Order: sequence, then C-alpha cells, then structure tokens
Amino acid sequence: MTTQEQLQQWHELGQQLRVDSIRMTTVAGSGHPTSSMSPADLMAVLLSKYLRYDFDNPEHPNNDRLIFSKGHAAPLLYSMYKAAGVITDAELRSLRHFGSRLEGHPTPVLPWVDVATGSLGQGLPIGVGIALGGKYLDQLPYHTWVLLGDSETAEGSVWEAFDHAGHYTLDNLIAIIDVNRLGQRGQTELGWNTQAYANRAKAFGWQAIEIDGHNLTEIDQAYSAAVAVNDHPTVIIARTKKGKGVAALEDLGGWHGKALKPDDQEQAIAELGGERQIIISVEKPEQQEQPASISNPQPLQLPTYNQGTKLATRRAYGDALVALGAAHPNVIVLDAEVSNSTYAEDFAETYPERYFEMYIAEQQMVAAAVGLQVRKYKPFASTFAAFLTRAYDFIRMAAVSRANIKLVGSHAGVSIGQDGASQMGLEDLAAFRAVWSSIVLYPCDANQTAKLVAQMSDLNGIVYLRTTRESTPVIYDAHEPFAIGGSKIIRSSDRDQAAVIGAGITVHEALKAYDRLKNEGITVRVIDAYSVKPIDVQTLHQAARDTNGNLVVVEDHWIEGGLGAAVLDSFAGTSDQTIYEGPQLRLIKLAVQDMPGSGTPQELLHAAKIDADAIVEAVKSQVRQQVIV
Amino acid sequence: MTTQEQLQQWHELGQQLRVDSIRMTTVAGSGHPTSSMSPADLMAVLLSKYLRYDFDNPEHPNNDRLIFSKGHAAPLLYSMYKAAGVITDAELRSLRHFGSRLEGHPTPVLPWVDVATGSLGQGLPIGVGIALGGKYLDQLPYHTWVLLGDSETAEGSVWEAFDHAGHYTLDNLIAIIDVNRLGQRGQTELGWNTQAYANRAKAFGWQAIEIDGHNLTEIDQAYSAAVAVNDHPTVIIARTKKGKGVAALEDLGGWHGKALKPDDQEQAIAELGGERQIIISVEKPEQQEQPASISNPQPLQLPTYNQGTKLATRRAYGDALVALGAAHPNVIVLDAEVSNSTYAEDFAETYPERYFEMYIAEQQMVAAAVGLQVRKYKPFASTFAAFLTRAYDFIRMAAVSRANIKLVGSHAGVSIGQDGASQMGLEDLAAFRAVWSSIVLYPCDANQTAKLVAQMSDLNGIVYLRTTRESTPVIYDAHEPFAIGGSKIIRSSDRDQAAVIGAGITVHEALKAYDRLKNEGITVRVIDAYSVKPIDVQTLHQAARDTNGNLVVVEDHWIEGGLGAAVLDSFAGTSDQTIYEGPQLRLIKLAVQDMPGSGTPQELLHAAKIDADAIVEAVKSQVRQQVIV
Repeated sequence: MTTQEQLQQWHELGQQLRVDSIRMTTVAGSGHPTSSMSPADLMAVLLSKYLRYDFDNPEHPNNDRLIFSKGHAAPLLYSMYKAAGVITDAELRSLRHFGSRLEGHPTPVLPWVDVATGSLGQGLPIGVGIALGGKYLDQLPYHTWVLLGDSETAEGSVWEAFDHAGHYTLDNLIAIIDVNRLGQRGQTELGWNTQAYANRAKAFGWQAIEIDGHNLTEIDQAYSAAVAVNDHPTVIIARTKKGKGVAALEDLGGWHGKALKPDDQEQAIAELGGERQIIISVEKPEQQEQPASISNPQPLQLPTYNQGTKLATRRAYGDALVALGAAHPNVIVLDAEVSNSTYAEDFAETYPERYFEMYIAEQQMVAAAVGLQVRKYKPFASTFAAFLTRAYDFIRMAAVSRANIKLVGSHAGVSIGQDGASQMGLEDLAAFRAVWSSIVLYPCDANQTAKLVAQMSDLNGIVYLRTTRESTPVIYDAHEPFAIGGSKIIRSSDRDQAAVIGAGITVHEALKAYDRLKNEGITVRVIDAYSVKPIDVQTLHQAARDTNGNLVVVEDHWIEGGLGAAVLDSFAGTSDQTIYEGPQLRLIKLAVQDMPGSGTPQELLHAAKIDADAIVEAVKSQVRQQVIV
Repeated sequence: MTTQEQLQQWHELGQQLRVDSIRMTTVAGSGHPTSSMSPADLMAVLLSKYLRYDFDNPEHPNNDRLIFSKGHAAPLLYSMYKAAGVITDAELRSLRHFGSRLEGHPTPVLPWVDVATGSLGQGLPIGVGIALGGKYLDQLPYHTWVLLGDSETAEGSVWEAFDHAGHYTLDNLIAIIDVNRLGQRGQTELGWNTQAYANRAKAFGWQAIEIDGHNLTEIDQAYSAAVAVNDHPTVIIARTKKGKGVAALEDLGGWHGKALKPDDQEQAIAELGGERQIIISVEKPEQQEQPASISNPQPLQLPTYNQGTKLATRRAYGDALVALGAAHPNVIVLDAEVSNSTYAEDFAETYPERYFEMYIAEQQMVAAAVGLQVRKYKPFASTFAAFLTRAYDFIRMAAVSRANIKLVGSHAGVSIGQDGASQMGLEDLAAFRAVWSSIVLYPCDANQTAKLVAQMSDLNGIVYLRTTRESTPVIYDAHEPFAIGGSKIIRSSDRDQAAVIGAGITVHEALKAYDRLKNEGITVRVIDAYSVKPIDVQTLHQAARDTNGNLVVVEDHWIEGGLGAAVLDSFAGTSDQTIYEGPQLRLIKLAVQDMPGSGTPQELLHAAKIDADAIVEAVKSQVRQQVIV
C-alpha cells in the first residue's frame, strides 16, 4: 500500500532529478534535459522502492542491473547517482567536460555503469544477455531493468530482444519504454499509441503494462506486477511528456538535445520547486543468495592433430571450444543458428547448459555476449564472418563498453567456394581491425587454431578469430606455441630474395609458391602472420631488411584494411611507433579486387589472383625488377 | 473460380520446380534442394496466375518484382526461370559452376534479379523500398512479392520492414513466409506456430493470412486476398514441409543445404512423377499505365559560400541536396530520424514528396535506398557516420547487388565534441573503403562539399560522403573543381621538407601547422585528400619524391583502415598498380588511438594527437631525423 507520504517523497525525488538534469546540462551548454525529464518519475520510484543495488559494491552478484538504453538521458542517470549519494553535486557540474567521468552518454568509466549506451536499440538486447545469465547461469533473483526511449523501438535489434526474451521466458527482465512521443526531429511513428506498443510486445510473448508515466501510483503498481510475474518478461509502456514539469518545454517540439540558457534555467527550476538535496538509501540486495556453483577450473587438455592430416580450422575451433569448456566452467557459447557450420555445435552438445541458441539474430548474439561478460562470463559467439557485419555497430559499442567478448567468424573469403559472394567474409579483417583495442587472429591449421582459442579465453577486449571453411593441411606440431602479436617464419634461408606474408588459407598457397620458386632457383621467406592485430612488427622489419624490401602480402579479403594494411602499417611511424629504417620497402599486395561468383575454392583463389600462381608471379616481378635495377 | 484443371497444372508445375531444384543441385554437388521444395507450390501458383512480368523487358516499369529473401532457395528461382522459358535446362546444370550466371545465391548478374540476397532478413526491407517507390513515386499498380524463410524472421531487420511497411500502408507489398519449421541446424523458434507469426504481423499493421502452403486452393485464395487489400501490406504465412514430396527428405532434419547423391536423386525424381518440361506463359503487366510524371531535369544551381566564412560541411550537404533536388527530379532522400542533424531536413521541407522518414532504423534505411534504385531513383540516405555501422551488412550486400546508392555520415570523429564516443564515427572510412567498388569522399569546406554532392548523383556503386559536425572555414573558391580521385595541394613550395595529408577537419589543423612551421623556417606541403577512395596516387607519389619521402597523414578516425591506410596503399604494388619508385617513404600516421571521452572539439583533437600541435611535432621529428642522418 502506497502512502501519501511515499507518493510525496517520490514526487520530490522526481522533481530533484529533473532540476539536476537541467542544472548540469545548462552548465555543460549541451545535453538532453527534456529527455531526462520525461522518465524522471519512473526512475524516482525505481530508485526509491524497487532497485536492489549495493552502490559500494557494484560487482555484487545479487545487484539488480539498470541499463539506460536511451543513453542520451545520461543526465537523469547521473542525477540518480547523486540522489543515491555516490556522486557529489559538484561532480554533476563536470558533465561533458574533458576528463570528467560524466560523459555525454554513459560509459563504464563509471563503476555503476555496466555497458556503454548511446547507439539506440542496444540496451535491451544487452539486458537480454544479462538476464540470460541471471536466470540460467547465476540462477540468482536479481532483475535487469532497461529504460528505453520510444523512438528506439524502430530499431530491429529491439525486436530481436523482444523475441529472444520471450523465447527464453526471461521473467527477470523488465523493460520500461518512456513514450514521450517526441523523437529528435518530430513525432515518433506511434506517438502516444501505447496500445500499439503493447500489442507488439504481447505478440512476442511479453507481459505488457500501459501506464501514465507521471502517475506515481500506476508506476508503483506496474513495477510490483513486473517483479511478480513468472515466465514472461515485462514491458512497462509509460505515456510521458518530454520536458515534463516546465511549461516552456513540456510536450513541445524543438527541444531535443538542447540545454537551457542560464536565464531560462532559473524559471524552469522555480517551476519545479527549486533545488533539492535529497539523498535516499537504495536498498541493497539480499546477501545470502549465492550464484549457482560452477565446477572448478580444470587443466586444459587441448586436442592435437598430426602434421600432414587435413582439417578445417572451423572444425578445430569446435574441438578446442569443447576442451576449453571442460577447463573453464565460465566459458559460454552463443551462435546464430549456424552452429553446424561454425562447429559451435560440439560445445552445445557437450555443455547444453552453457550454450544459448541466438537464432539468426547477430545483433542480439553480440549484445548477449556483452551482457554475459557483465557478469564475468567468457562468451564466445560465432557465425559466418560475413554475417558478423550485421552486428558491427554492436561490436563498435562493445569496445566503448570495454567489454571482453570473443567473436568467431567462419567461412572467410572466396575460398568458401560455391555459395557465392553473399556468404564470403571479405571485409571482416578491416572491420575488426578498426575496432578499438581489438585483437584479430587468423589461424591456418588445426593445431594453431587450438592454441589460439586456448589463449582467447584470457584475453581482454574484443577478440576476433577468423576461421576457414575448407580443410587445410596441419603444418605445425601440436606443441608449437603461438604468441598473440607473434608470427611464424615457416620457410627461410640466409639468401631470401623476397618474403611472402600470408595468413589462414593463403599460408598454404605461399608454401606451394615457395616450392615452385625454389625449383626455379628463387628462395623466399614464408611468414605466417596469424596475429593480424597486433602484428609482429619486428619480424616484418627483419624480413624487409633481409630481402632488400621485397615483401608480398597475400590475403583472402578485399584489398582494403586487411592483412596487407596491417603489414603496411607496421612500416609507418605513429605517435607510439618509430618509422622503419632499412632498405626501401617494395611491397606487393595480393588481395581480392573483383566481385567473386561461385566456383571451386581453387578456381576462386586463382581468379582473385591470391593463389600460388599469383604469388609466384609477384615474387618474380619483384626479383626481376631488382635485377634490372 | 479455380478449376480442377488449373489445380492440376499448378501441381505439375510445382513438381517440376522441385524436380529441377533437385537435379541442378545434384549436378552441382551442393546447394539447397529441400529449402527449394517447401515453397515450390507457392511459387507455382504465383508464376502461373498472379505474377505480372515481362521477361523480355526486365526494366519495364509495370513489372511486378519478386525477391527471394531466402536466397538459398536460388534453385527454385532458377527453376522458375526455366519454367518461364528464359533459361534452358542445360543452363540449369551450370548451377554454382565457375563463370555461371546461376550463382549459389541470386545476384543481378541475372537480368531478372533486382537485388542480391543470401544474407537473410534483407529481402523484405529492400521490398519495402521498392514498394515505397511504387506507391508514392511511380504510382503504378505493380506488386512487390517477397519470399521469406521462417528462420530469417529472427532478424530484427525483418521487423524494421514490418514496421515501415505498416507505417507507410504499403498495400503493394506481399510477403510470403515459407514456414517449413526447420532451420539450418534444427527447429526454428516458432516451429509451425503460424498464429504467432500472424499475431506479430498484425501488431505491426499487416493483413496476415495463415494457409497450408501445399494446398493450391488456399494459396490461390491468399494471393487473391493479398492483391485486393487496400492500405495494408499482406503477409501470407504458409505452413510447409521442407523437402516436400520426397519421403526420404520431407520434414526431416539434417537435410539443410545438402544436395542429393546421384543415386538418391533418381528415387526422389520418380516420387515426384519424373522430369517435366512445362513452359508457362507468364502474364505481362498492363502496358498503358505510366509512371507518375516527374518534372524535367533543370540546370544545377549549387549554393556558393564566401571564403573566410564558416559553415559545417553537414550544413553544406543539406544546402547542396536541395539544389540537387531542384535539378534532378529523381533524387530521393532518406534519413534515420536525425535529419535536423544531418541537414537532410532542408530537402524534406522543400520536397516532402521525395523524402521518406526512416525513423531510427538504419538497416531499413539502406535497404530502402537499394529498393529505390531498383526503379532507377537516386537515393541519398543519411545518419550519423557512427550509426551507418548498424547497416554494414546491408551496405556489403548492396555492393553484391551492384546497387547505386549514396550514403552520408555526419558527426565524424572526435571533433564532434561533448557527446562522447558512442556518437563518433571513427571506423566509417575503414568500413566503407572495404566495400567493393565504393567511392569515399570527405570534404573539408562548404564549397567542396557542394561540388562533391553534385557529382555523387551521377556516380555508380556505393558512394559515401563523410561530413563534419563543427563549422569549418571556407577555404576554397566556389568555382574550384574537385574531381573524384583527385586531391588539392593547398600549400606548396619548391623546397617542401615534408607533406601533410589531411581530409575534412584535419585539413584545417594542417593549415594551422603550416603557419607555425613556416614561422620556424620549415616549409611543408599541405594536401587535401578529399577523395579517400579512389585516392590521388600521383599527387602522393610526387609529394614523396619532393619531400625525400616525408609524409605525415592526419585523420580524425581510428588508426586502422582510414586515410592513412589509403595513403600507404598508394605506395604498394598490386596486380593493378606498380610499386612506387622514389626516395624511401618515411610516413607518419596521426590518428585516434585511445578511446575518447567528452570535451570540446579542440580538446579532443589535441588529446587524440591529431591537431596542429601533433602535426608540428611529427613534421619536426621527420625533419630532425633527416638532419641527423
């Protein structure tokens, strides 16, 4: 039963959150006060009565999680932190200033922010990941609350989340849609038609509750119903007014993302009843519940393969993942309905309780991985390399979240053969290299794959592994180590006339070229650059010095941004890296330039001029030119 | 009224489509016969009675459009072409062979295929684009038919399409979901629960019709209802069996993407009643209807700006777009609910009938652009550069579709300032450069922007323009030409000790650095590389020759894959490009390496070491080293 006193307290807190959102954005001179004001009552009740959170211990496994999917309402979130007593009023005034923790959109620079938001439509799918962890892995009663804007429900990723949350009966997930009806540049598609939202949510298996988002009693009742439900996620569809509480702003267009001028601020604050310094004591979670016990880590027993046999690296990935699963009980695997192609299915069969089928929803898959790592799990998520491009914005944002996730793309390059261009990952290396702090790995044989997968589980950041569809010969001994940032010189002599640098499938083309060139009296070094990022700068520089600068880089990827670019980068200076000194670099890039069609792998490698023939020709052209010179 | 004879003919055609799908995949040794068999009856009735298509004139404006969103059912599509008499039985047998038009997934290499499919969940959003054109621009009665698999409805992009088609009341759009309940690796999320699909579709404003997809009368009635409806798109949810008609395949797991062995083929064909050579005469569209007349092209009158004034290039984009709209009546503009930031709003206000609001649905936006260019419109689609990453898979596939679309990303780089990393486009150049046959442009001032936008409308392929949030000085005369593939040398002398290469915002930092270096007696060349792809190789080589190889590239982008990579690439050899000859290249890349936060543009440029200070320091380090040497 809600007392009048409680209602009044909530009202006062809501007004404080509005006032503080206005104050800090006015100081900053930019930001989103009006978008912070519409859901202020919703957040006041949440913070006062429903959220279970130990602000002194953000890592507490029993903490509820709160995600502002509408990241531009950051001022509201920061105002909540002030109300919870964890940041000062002075710090609020640092909003959007250089060096402040209070960035324009929330990031985990703040200890209470689990994931970065600001690219709309990502908070709910990430919440699905946390809720999957809570319900099926932790088996803890915490809730994941996600505040969404109404505009962002136009993002398909939001419906991937609705779909998956319904499918996995995530009754620990509560979405709150702040239906203030005004987007950035005008009315939203559905305006205040909360019933339309409710119908959609129900069709995806959710409990949907329509309320007046400024009616504190209705908010209270909705939360109460949300935490009580079983087997259904709940969405609270709250009709609100943007800029609520200030006549000059309320429900008016033209105010999105605009701070008030200092003069206007005074009037607005007065209307809202002036500044307040309410500090509330947020209830901590029950301490006695413990996460479901997981077995202890075991020594890792990687599969090994005999040199000379043939196996696809995607197959070796599947094998290694099972081994990793046995050793590390916190390894979780996700796949986008192609687990029998990526070979994630081996793990799914062995450890079904640690496998989540994400169906054909790559955005949701990556988001779920980000959510799972919030709770310190080690997610590996796989699909075709080409289809990870579907989730590129999520991968970009995962980097802003400082998330630790492992992504695996199979079916790289033209060497997949008959299926054609739509299935060929030809831009994945470029895309992943351009992700902040990423690691990009591309093995060429089964033993190397196993060793790299084993290391992936302990690497931080966005770690990408590219695997190959076709079987390739095992060329390394099972005991060979492969350091991140290293490379392997597979063939070399003291009179190498050129160095051929490949990775994955092209390593085998380079070895064929080596033999043919040797027969013609030309000796080349062959370097396996399995660590595309970070790349082995020293070995490349040495190769250039030893070969009078004659490098040939060959890759099954578009010519932009991939291995060739990584090698070229290693010869440039940066603020961190001194310029290469040595003989003039004479580098030839062999990569895919024309749109491929169908064909056999060998036909397509040949047509793309990235096979042994092309390598032989490139090396000869270099050697010939230098003879002439 | 359907006669028994008609039903029998449709049945025979359906069986032929199945038999041919089996035959061609068995010859190929791979492919998707079972996924082609489940919708064979649906396609038999469509081809026989409802499709209006002039196969002799695929460009006919009145043609219906048929998109196989489930691109892996390509064998069925090709079997339909055989039944329509436009390809031979012999050509069917070339499926998936090197050089064949019959690729593993459909591409516009075939004249009757408008767009490539094979990345699931893309056909319906593209269909929305075609249907928007048909209803609002062409104003012609043709229908767009889209065949979807059930698995692909897990893609959020499908729900973006449901949402937009409902919003725009696209009664000329008919989706057919082939609910064969079996995905690649097992049961789909919803199995044969066609009602769940129907409830979802209805919640998004669609007419939904559930049928038995092998009951020819039900199919006929559903199509009849679909073409009769007003103001609602229709989805036909057809319960089918994968591998229908062959006991060894029908409704069984383990048969996704598997061709039959020659021996098994014989039994299967026998079960289906043997080979047939039915040729049907597909009804042509009504010829008398003409596309809505559009005004004649007018001479282009671009806005001009005075040198020394300041204006953001995004603002200039908006101005140029309005001018382009006046000159070219086939220019269509799309934006993802940020038109007041990208300045697409200027066009929307001037030509509302040629502007489509895509709300916050970047995948649908790019897909709609692809759909619109099918009907020869020239779509320009804009949002923040960062958020175009959301549509990367669609952009990749647009290249496979050989689509001509223009994409514009605003708010590039750290120079946006306070909003923080989530809003900063820092990987867009890398991503777009790695798109086949793309053109990447990045202007630094308003006059240059106008000139580039003017050229964009006539360029083919994927054309990307990167604009800047902040105002920048107008440095070029309004009459200056800017060729695609060119660059501008803004400062030079006959004793340049280094060349600084920038684009967009960093051009202005380079000019500041020039002045400071000049004061210290160091003369540098300043090159504006506004055409990032193709890049001006000759000018860069000349700069290296003239400066003893001292190049400094500075860009507001992650250090991977952007302008610096483009410049480095110009010094490598490829199968098309000979290696640079000249003094040893000593190139320093200045680019963003640390995760930025909030701050003023200048603070963030400085922190990222891409401002004038960093350029001065880099040039000095080069010059100093060479003095020592």
